[in-house]
Amino acid sequence: MHFFEDIEVGQRREAGSFTFTAEDIKRFARQFDPQRFHLSEEEGRNSLFGGLAASGWHVASVCMKMMVADGQREAREAAARGERVAVWGPSPGFRELRWLQPVLVGDTLSFAGIVEAKRTSASRPEWGIVQIRNSGTNQRGELAFSFLATAFVPRQGAGA
Amino acid sequence: MHFFEDIEVGQRREAGSFTFTAEDIKRFARQFDPQRFHLSEEEGRNSLFGGLAASGWHVASVCMKMMVADGQREAREAAARGERVAVWGPSPGFRELRWLQPVLVGDTLSFAGIVEAKRTSASRPEWGIVQIRNSGTNQRGELAFSFLATAFVPRQGAGA
Repeated sequence: MHFFEDIEVGQRREAGSFTFTAEDIKRFARQFDPQRFHLSEEEGRNSLFGGLAASGWHVASVCMKMMVADGQREAREAAARGERVAVWGPSPGFRELRWLQPVLVGDTLSFAGIVEAKRTSASRPEWGIVQIRNSGTNQRGELAFSFLATAFVPRQGAGA
Repeated sequence: MHFFEDIEVGQRREAGSFTFTAEDIKRFARQFDPQRFHLSEEEGRNSLFGGLAASGWHVASVCMKMMVADGQREAREAAARGERVAVWGPSPGFRELRWLQPVLVGDTLSFAGIVEAKRTSASRPEWGIVQIRNSGTNQRGELAFSFLATAFVPRQGAGA
């Protein structure tokens, strides 16, 4: 995880890819979104989705999983090099979440984030605020999912 | 589930409440958001959250769970009265998702949705578009979570 000063607008971070299996899709759906097109192949085929489709909240949660795993890997590598690791603050929310394409069983999404803006915080000088557009692109190169995340990122001068 | 014509701006729908247990919080975190303050009471207490905190994506997923359960209950009741039940379309996304208060172990959120706007779709005359502000309020009456959802809702004339 980087400090505010190390982050540049336009920076892109690849967070790896994830293939949605029928078991994954149905398990999430049973817990959190038991709509028929998320629970049954046949119902999915007969729906507007045209196949067993992952819940949009499942897609968002998998994106988080990939981003967290990537951040933890990066932090371990930085620590192994003896570098100071920045601890990002909690996110206050995000904007413009879009489900642009269905995510069907067997689809593979590749997740990435691109820095769209950064600014210092007037009220909290030890933190910067970074806006990152996170996205998931499917195996056909179609943008399937995106949202604009806001993160509090510590500044170099701050203890971390 | 209502048809477009039956929905009025300002309508409020209560979707029930949910208490976040340590087991729920950690299970979601292990699957999708394995950050330390979502996995351990002690790490949570030592974090900005001040306690074991649910992942924001867990809060969003539980909100979905409550909304789906409420919609299914309503659809069963309408079907039992012999009424036609509207089948809502998939959501294209939402805006302004806000995590306003931490959701800590033992907190109970009450979920509700309020209709903020409705309009017909020029390109798809069989559908209306409804914007609903969904929210979760904790046991102290504090708004903890909200987002503005967009839904495609069938019109009375359309087959459903």
